[in-house]
Amino acid sequence: MPTLRIALSQDNPTVGDLDANAELIRRAATAASEAGAHLLATGEQSLTGYPVEDLALRASFVAAARDRLDRLAAELAADGNGALPVVVGCLDADGPRSAERDHGSPDSGDERGRHGVRNALALIQDGKILFRYYKHHLPNHGVFDEDRYFVAGHELHLARIGGVDVAFTVCEDLRQEGVPFAAAAEAGAGLVVNISASPYVQGEHEERLALLRRRAAELGGPIAYVNLVGGQDGLVFDGGSTVVAADGGVLAAAGRFAPELLLADLELEAGREGERPSGTPMRIVRHTLSEAHPAPERAIAPAASPPPLGRHEEIWEALRLGLGDYTRKNGFRSVLLGLSGGIDSAVTAVLARDALGSEAVWTVANPSRYSSQHSLDDAADLAERCGLNHSVEPIQPIVDAYLTQMSLSGLALENLQARVRGVIWMALSNQHGHLVLAAGNKSEYAVGYSTLYGDSCGGFAPIKDVPKTLVYELAAWRNEHARKLGEVEPIPENIILKPPSAELRPDQKDSDSLPDYAMLDPMLLAYVDGEAGREDLIAQGYPPEIVTRIVNLVDGAEYKRRQSAPGTKISKTSFGRDRRLPITNRFRGRGAGNSSHEARGR
Amino acid sequence: MPTLRIALSQDNPTVGDLDANAELIRRAATAASEAGAHLLATGEQSLTGYPVEDLALRASFVAAARDRLDRLAAELAADGNGALPVVVGCLDADGPRSAERDHGSPDSGDERGRHGVRNALALIQDGKILFRYYKHHLPNHGVFDEDRYFVAGHELHLARIGGVDVAFTVCEDLRQEGVPFAAAAEAGAGLVVNISASPYVQGEHEERLALLRRRAAELGGPIAYVNLVGGQDGLVFDGGSTVVAADGGVLAAAGRFAPELLLADLELEAGREGERPSGTPMRIVRHTLSEAHPAPERAIAPAASPPPLGRHEEIWEALRLGLGDYTRKNGFRSVLLGLSGGIDSAVTAVLARDALGSEAVWTVANPSRYSSQHSLDDAADLAERCGLNHSVEPIQPIVDAYLTQMSLSGLALENLQARVRGVIWMALSNQHGHLVLAAGNKSEYAVGYSTLYGDSCGGFAPIKDVPKTLVYELAAWRNEHARKLGEVEPIPENIILKPPSAELRPDQKDSDSLPDYAMLDPMLLAYVDGEAGREDLIAQGYPPEIVTRIVNLVDGAEYKRRQSAPGTKISKTSFGRDRRLPITNRFRGRGAGNSSHEARGR
Repeated sequence: MPTLRIALSQDNPTVGDLDANAELIRRAATAASEAGAHLLATGEQSLTGYPVEDLALRASFVAAARDRLDRLAAELAADGNGALPVVVGCLDADGPRSAERDHGSPDSGDERGRHGVRNALALIQDGKILFRYYKHHLPNHGVFDEDRYFVAGHELHLARIGGVDVAFTVCEDLRQEGVPFAAAAEAGAGLVVNISASPYVQGEHEERLALLRRRAAELGGPIAYVNLVGGQDGLVFDGGSTVVAADGGVLAAAGRFAPELLLADLELEAGREGERPSGTPMRIVRHTLSEAHPAPERAIAPAASPPPLGRHEEIWEALRLGLGDYTRKNGFRSVLLGLSGGIDSAVTAVLARDALGSEAVWTVANPSRYSSQHSLDDAADLAERCGLNHSVEPIQPIVDAYLTQMSLSGLALENLQARVRGVIWMALSNQHGHLVLAAGNKSEYAVGYSTLYGDSCGGFAPIKDVPKTLVYELAAWRNEHARKLGEVEPIPENIILKPPSAELRPDQKDSDSLPDYAMLDPMLLAYVDGEAGREDLIAQGYPPEIVTRIVNLVDGAEYKRRQSAPGTKISKTSFGRDRRLPITNRFRGRGAGNSSHEARGR
Repeated sequence: MPTLRIALSQDNPTVGDLDANAELIRRAATAASEAGAHLLATGEQSLTGYPVEDLALRASFVAAARDRLDRLAAELAADGNGALPVVVGCLDADGPRSAERDHGSPDSGDERGRHGVRNALALIQDGKILFRYYKHHLPNHGVFDEDRYFVAGHELHLARIGGVDVAFTVCEDLRQEGVPFAAAAEAGAGLVVNISASPYVQGEHEERLALLRRRAAELGGPIAYVNLVGGQDGLVFDGGSTVVAADGGVLAAAGRFAPELLLADLELEAGREGERPSGTPMRIVRHTLSEAHPAPERAIAPAASPPPLGRHEEIWEALRLGLGDYTRKNGFRSVLLGLSGGIDSAVTAVLARDALGSEAVWTVANPSRYSSQHSLDDAADLAERCGLNHSVEPIQPIVDAYLTQMSLSGLALENLQARVRGVIWMALSNQHGHLVLAAGNKSEYAVGYSTLYGDSCGGFAPIKDVPKTLVYELAAWRNEHARKLGEVEPIPENIILKPPSAELRPDQKDSDSLPDYAMLDPMLLAYVDGEAGREDLIAQGYPPEIVTRIVNLVDGAEYKRRQSAPGTKISKTSFGRDRRLPITNRFRGRGAGNSSHEARGR
């Protein structure tokens, strides 16, 4: 059986930065060539970044992306890497191309995809684009809107490389039964490459591995899966590129949450001549690049698979990368957040320190007359442990200035304090150029337990998709992790132990307004992430009056979530494009009182 | 030829309010029965409201909607309207139904539509659901995400009513060539009913009429089109239900922007026996409700078509209804906005007065040391002319309280003033229960010429989709309209004549930071609403340095728009779900400097 040395470039492109992304691909090609690889694959839309969203509808962007691919082909040859077949994730569109001749032909379109735009995979060799494969299965659920942008392809391309017929697929193609994987199997593919942009979700990595094993078994040969890595707005691509054998064995695996060039020597079934299967709905197009290669001179020892990450470490790494990339890719060098002395801002601050370094993190405590001394002390203690730039800006004199003019009470007074803090953070952001981080957790976003334009101020919300109980677990894990490394625990124990409070009125506790988080979070998981309705929750044993209240709070807070900053998705259903509910929504007989546009909780 | 009296109920359902929506349908059925109608049609998803968005993915909602339809069928019979065939827009799903037997059978699903949910039209008679038609063409562009929710139908239903074969379609079915209209024509339909939820866009009403004429000519018979009316978050359904004859003549037409029961006597081709066309991709299902009816005793005189609305009146009515319905459907009784003395807040205030009445509108002027006396006077003058509840809350003492503690300059100081105003409005909202309106226009939202958490505060942004030049036109039109009615002009002339200024620093003018709106707005129309790129704009003759600056401002303000309140769509591409661009987006070589997360303009 021929041996192919394949290289998978798990890399971190930036949406729209065509030149920088092309540069990443060129560097990977040089490294792969030097390592003697016979084939290099990069992730889905590695040239444009993923997802480009409505940029795919802008003709000037699509034209620029197509032209950049043509230039990349020439550059790869000029770099001396022309002999290496390079798989690039890109966009394509119907209509004349400005430069290179297209060796594949766009297949018949359907009515979707306004401009005949395709989510494409291009194979480049010798300065030429040998063919383009167009993604067959277009995901249009969860965060994905690919039916909005793309027309599906119906041609499967096989390239004979070193005597092996390699088939090419894109992301969702792996998830659906039948074509194109079934077509690849029937066509006698010895290897299927799948280039992906698969965002992090808890447990998703294990599901992907199970899926790869199933498809490899169906194929009777290995699958090489390459994923992107890095943050894009609310998504984090988590890497974990893997080569799986027909027997389910992992032949090679990259780490998670970091760029890596994964190399593997694969013994593969040689392509058989003249095979022409029929009866599949995809047309098979064959290309011959090279017959048998000499086996690589020095075999690559199969790398040990990276040890699996524990649950909390994996989430922490996702959040760290999401926050870090949002900050860097949007041109910020520093972040600022209010440090209340509570658990949410503590975890957010430590994440920011881990993502950007302590010099890049600015924290400010904003005590009011309801703030406890322990909150101020705990905030200062955390800043000191982490080496953050910490300052104190009391809000009482400013709050009093408002109250001199206006007569406010109750919720209006509570919210005023949170908003004065928000104004201070934004003023410091404007004056010094920091990105403001909002420290709200998922439980708060769910029930609207936050002040719009107050503590929700900020350009990014790092723990927006982390339920409160998980925030505590992450805090405990991060401290334990520090202990294991012999480092100072970043989070003072008192912050973890004290009962949560917004400190907006005397002796306020979250538990005054909300059920215990140990009860609330599972309810929210069922109602927000899952599809349970009010009756289902009651059937699960939650007290009806609490269920009614929480359901009303969640639905009534939709207007606040619409005005909230993005945050890193870690759950099946994050707030944002994952979960698209109307603001005006009277389902469950929610009357006027329940949909009023201000915080119930605070 | 048989004569059918048809009734089209152009009504205003609320998303999720199943009982109230069912009540609207029951009332329409009673009125239609009393008027001797042979058929009543209501709009798309008239029972659930449109669009229900991710409620369609919630099993409890879908079950509730299906059950409510069953109950509605029984209620219509109990009301004594059982004999009247009633077309209801609703949802359906695969799987057992709790009550009524389903006379139509769900056709083969495809992989879209996670739960086999259908955008359905049900025909009810004698307490039973006779059949359900499932929308064939699912729009998945612009504001529509129907591929996310629904599985397409492939069965066309014809009901013989009074001897006429009537075919039924839903909204987008009308827009696509071929089936189902072609199938209806082949099957010998004497009338096609199209139930729609078609949102207002400038010029759309005329395009719809042209489309109806084309389809009616193809069919060789009339089409009865019934649209919803009313606001739902950022959309306004504009009514304009119309019956068009094969020769293009308008047989009946409802008004715009208001509920109406439209009645028309239609002379229709009798159904032919046994016709069974072949070769169409839709299966034809025939139902017989009634053979020849006696002609209605007293013919309805064809109502004169409502006079077409002028361009500005039409836009005004759309904005008025959008603002009014958002307020009412979310349970508010009053609105509050800052009245700066400028054109945007003036137009917003008059819209609010027109939508909700003067007692429901609360305005506040927030002078700073940079506010001119004429601004204060103009604001008070407008409030007086319109009978609004007006007050003055100076911000300087509060701004000074911040400045006592913090050293702020430039943009930080400008934004501080806008944010102090925002905090005051929100405090008044919290204290008194008003919905805060944000008065920004589309040009500002486009280039980010606003302060996040400052003047952008609010639950709804009535003129968010109105470019600045159109704001002026609307102001002039509204004053002229008042003159024609012999009423006081609501907007003081000085507000219309003075150059626009944010008044956040001495002698500030919009033109210090931005090109003249007469140049800016057409550029934005090309770049934001259209698909022009930077090079296209330069090719159109705009100065390259201005193009580069504006393109960078627009792309760099995406993070602000994500945190903005919804506003009524009036253009082809409004900000919101219509235009989904990434925040992290380096296309056009936008470097760090261009994507920094704070206002460039102010």
